Amino acid sequence: MAYKAPVRDLTFILNEVLEIDRYSNQPGFAEVSSDLVQQILEEGAKFAEEVIAPLNKVGDQEGCKWDNGKVTGPTGWKEAYQQMVEAGWPGLSSDPAHGGQGMPAIVGMAFGQFTAAASPAFSMYPGLTHGCYEALHANASDELKAIYCPKLATGEWGGTMNLTEPQCGTDLGLIRTKAVPNGDGSYNITGQKIWISSGEHDFTDNIIHLVLARIEGAPAGIKGISLFVVPKVFVNEDGSLGDRNEGAQCAGLEHKMGIHGNATCVMSYENAKGWLVGTENKGMAAMFVMMNEARLGTGLQGHSIGTAAYQAAVEFARDRLQGRSLTGPKNADGPADPIIVHPDVRRMLLESKAYVEGGQAFILWTALQADLQKSDDEATAQKARDYMGLITPVVKAFLTDRGFHVASLAMQVHGGSGYTEHFPASQYLRDARITLIYEGTNGVQALDLVGRKLPANGGRAIMSWFADIDAFVSDNSGNEAIKPFIDGLSDSKKKLQEATMWLMQNGMQNPDNAGAASTDYLHIFGLTAMAYVWAQMAIAAQKAIDGGSEDPFYVTKLQTGRYFVERILPDAGSHLAKLKTGADVLMAMPAEAF
Amino acid sequence: MAYKAPVRDLTFILNEVLEIDRYSNQPGFAEVSSDLVQQILEEGAKFAEEVIAPLNKVGDQEGCKWDNGKVTGPTGWKEAYQQMVEAGWPGLSSDPAHGGQGMPAIVGMAFGQFTAAASPAFSMYPGLTHGCYEALHANASDELKAIYCPKLATGEWGGTMNLTEPQCGTDLGLIRTKAVPNGDGSYNITGQKIWISSGEHDFTDNIIHLVLARIEGAPAGIKGISLFVVPKVFVNEDGSLGDRNEGAQCAGLEHKMGIHGNATCVMSYENAKGWLVGTENKGMAAMFVMMNEARLGTGLQGHSIGTAAYQAAVEFARDRLQGRSLTGPKNADGPADPIIVHPDVRRMLLESKAYVEGGQAFILWTALQADLQKSDDEATAQKARDYMGLITPVVKAFLTDRGFHVASLAMQVHGGSGYTEHFPASQYLRDARITLIYEGTNGVQALDLVGRKLPANGGRAIMSWFADIDAFVSDNSGNEAIKPFIDGLSDSKKKLQEATMWLMQNGMQNPDNAGAASTDYLHIFGLTAMAYVWAQMAIAAQKAIDGGSEDPFYVTKLQTGRYFVERILPDAGSHLAKLKTGADVLMAMPAEAF
Repeated sequence: MAYKAPVRDLTFILNEVLEIDRYSNQPGFAEVSSDLVQQILEEGAKFAEEVIAPLNKVGDQEGCKWDNGKVTGPTGWKEAYQQMVEAGWPGLSSDPAHGGQGMPAIVGMAFGQFTAAASPAFSMYPGLTHGCYEALHANASDELKAIYCPKLATGEWGGTMNLTEPQCGTDLGLIRTKAVPNGDGSYNITGQKIWISSGEHDFTDNIIHLVLARIEGAPAGIKGISLFVVPKVFVNEDGSLGDRNEGAQCAGLEHKMGIHGNATCVMSYENAKGWLVGTENKGMAAMFVMMNEARLGTGLQGHSIGTAAYQAAVEFARDRLQGRSLTGPKNADGPADPIIVHPDVRRMLLESKAYVEGGQAFILWTALQADLQKSDDEATAQKARDYMGLITPVVKAFLTDRGFHVASLAMQVHGGSGYTEHFPASQYLRDARITLIYEGTNGVQALDLVGRKLPANGGRAIMSWFADIDAFVSDNSGNEAIKPFIDGLSDSKKKLQEATMWLMQNGMQNPDNAGAASTDYLHIFGLTAMAYVWAQMAIAAQKAIDGGSEDPFYVTKLQTGRYFVERILPDAGSHLAKLKTGADVLMAMPAEAF
Repeated sequence: MAYKAPVRDLTFILNEVLEIDRYSNQPGFAEVSSDLVQQILEEGAKFAEEVIAPLNKVGDQEGCKWDNGKVTGPTGWKEAYQQMVEAGWPGLSSDPAHGGQGMPAIVGMAFGQFTAAASPAFSMYPGLTHGCYEALHANASDELKAIYCPKLATGEWGGTMNLTEPQCGTDLGLIRTKAVPNGDGSYNITGQKIWISSGEHDFTDNIIHLVLARIEGAPAGIKGISLFVVPKVFVNEDGSLGDRNEGAQCAGLEHKMGIHGNATCVMSYENAKGWLVGTENKGMAAMFVMMNEARLGTGLQGHSIGTAAYQAAVEFARDRLQGRSLTGPKNADGPADPIIVHPDVRRMLLESKAYVEGGQAFILWTALQADLQKSDDEATAQKARDYMGLITPVVKAFLTDRGFHVASLAMQVHGGSGYTEHFPASQYLRDARITLIYEGTNGVQALDLVGRKLPANGGRAIMSWFADIDAFVSDNSGNEAIKPFIDGLSDSKKKLQEATMWLMQNGMQNPDNAGAASTDYLHIFGLTAMAYVWAQMAIAAQKAIDGGSEDPFYVTKLQTGRYFVERILPDAGSHLAKLKTGADVLMAMPAEAF
């Protein structure tokens, strides 16, 4: 069962749908030709398929081993990590000033889909490292940047984020970890952090921990949290490695349902030496750079696991001979037909394919916004920032929810085989499940969307997005060939608008109404966003066909999109009906009656 | 985290909703008073909570061990199994002629919910044994019955069902296992069977295998399959155990995602001696007695795992302090509020509770039909048989699908804790996932429903069911207090009727339309069935309130049901919209384009 990176799907989106060549005047895009991107993705695909994918199963089976504070990864993982660093992949979209290749985020998030699908647990090591790099890049002093950024950019050192403590996950105001100033600009950090992904391992010579802690005497709650950089090994002035930061230790590993290959650590800080990143008591804002990146990365991860699971399901459905087609044998010479002849098996596969390819486009559209935030044109940049704020919780929650759904469908296609660990379906399902939880549960994402992102700047982001969709619908309303896509988008957008109105009218007067509506709202949003990118893909595919292309790729793309419109988009209606019932039914019951 | 058997919920359904005292004139009910049932369920609850539930986690962690054909269960399981046999639980609803207690199925399926929730893997040992017993009871000669039924009825011996082979799961026409007559009435059975639950273990002195095989020279396909009883140990004429049936061996165990405590065996038959059950080449019909029971048992299992998972989620949500209520602190003296104050957490819990309690009633309503099949009144018996045929695939597929959904919600309520194996959520999720697959995948159930059960006898069963619901709606249309329940049921039933019409008009001319519609159809059916039992529960609860009861149980029941109507039932609309799009979008794509 070999994972095959969907290079053709992604280059179609980049070149024919988003037309990235149009952005050559934007920062970072100057040297990004479609040819170069093609070449990068082909190389990246090869690396993901040949080096990373073979690690996935052994990671699941062996997991990581803890021995007296030291953690060893699964067989072959250290070597593959180092091979990845040598090939320069971790620095793909890092700043050239730090040794990165300076590619736009859109290229990084295309390649990222390959590694996350090939091995979700493995991809977290470079993923968190890059998040740590970005947080330091955005917030740290030049001095700290000079020490840490170059080695993080290339992946020579690992990076982590330390938020959660036993008594606080979502509610970081409850953090107890303390920071005591040493008088020399450094602090002594003491406290316990849990669920620290990639917290300790043997892949790199150093690991750079970003740790949220409370400086002695800081205000209570979230306003008294500061961010610190705590290296596993101190760095000498000449950049060489010095002594071990003995106070920073891995106290144990979590035993988890999946992503066994990633070391999920209990980190114990006891007078571990660290340095303040950014401003005192503004740690949350600084950490949010990393958290937002991690949220996008988690959405991408959930989506990508779905991609790999779907591929495994297709292979099984083509090979497994069982029963006959309802309309007569399709493999008359064989003992039975392959199960892909059955409409209900095709339903599961097409549902998966529609989410997988819709997700690819949704992620790359979002990554383009991430790049456009850096535009020199302030209007362009502001709109992109607005969209990133609005879309990040949707990418995280909707794509992980649907990625898990796809992984579950893939197991179902496998039947009993899928439940055994001999086939890959179980690992995909188990690995995918965490993506709905970490980096802020999907419920927290939904609250972030309705409580913060929607009302921000008087609703500027959502109004701008609606206007974009209206213009798109209007521009394409004469295109008869893709009418179902435009109608579907238009209908879904109307439902989202109705839900938004409902929230404005009912969420202000009673915040519980906003909370009660949040998850259904997020799903209508996700469906509408996917309807939007599916319509864009349909236009591009139809254009190729109209232009004389006989590549079946385009016909398949339209058929897959049609499934999305006919058999997925109707869910928006039931989400809207549920949303409009409000908070009453949820809040009426006393806690003891559950 | 202790499982608490929902005795109050079930006795409410038995006594106040279904009013089982009304059936004292039916076979098996004569001595079944509500007092006796109460007593049985209280004792059963105690046994499930105190003896079975503590086995669940150790079963998951240790699994079963295979050594040279011998299988050892997890620590303590053998002792608990024997304790269960001594207490007489396996024979609760078995024939008194074989040492059973002769309780109706409705009592057996109430107690069955407790054991399946307490430990799904453990409950499969007595569950399959009872299915084996029923199949022999219905099909075997008196001679075979005399040998096997008494020890199976009491659970002193275990029982199994052997259908699947590596090349055939769903499509049993492909079975290759051979049976060669020995001339003395016995046969030599040779072949390999896989995924045999409880296939080998150390809990009992003997294990009775029911094996599907092909007698030499039998017709090809499903019409040449016969059923055999193959004991692990031969039984002497005086009933004592004789030699080992050396040809029947466990060749290994499957490594699975969940239900680790149940031994899922590869069974190797090499000239294993067995005896024909029922008629030559009519093995499928004979085995269907066991399969139908197993399908109901699987629906019950998926549902019951959801019940236990829901309980764990409630406990966590009450204990975990994190964040503040959107409407101001509810636990002002504590560092944060319990997460059960949050509307979105309540949404997950109420969604679970609504499925759990709806499932309880749906199962017991179905079990009542199972009992009424034995009625002396032929009209009553025929209607009950019709309903059993119609409802069995719905119980199996809908309740397992929703049970898994509830288990996944329970993990989500737990957040990161739920993903660690320290909490029980992961085991529930992993254990629940198999129920969507075995005993016929849920897709196969949906095909069975639309392809066989609906058209059987000219649609008599579904028309009768619709008429029952119409009469019920009409009878209760004046009851203002429960109007939302009646309206919801009426609306859902209309949608099911519309879907049924669509199937009649489109499924006949193109069977792929039936296949394409099957899963959505089954879900509309399941929602309607649950709306029906929820309306019945609402009437009973309202009656108690109107009668002056101040027990909060009844108010809670109505609130939970209201969630079902407001926030679950709208799904019927999107299933109908999807169903009506037909097979085109599913069948258009060539297999190689997926």
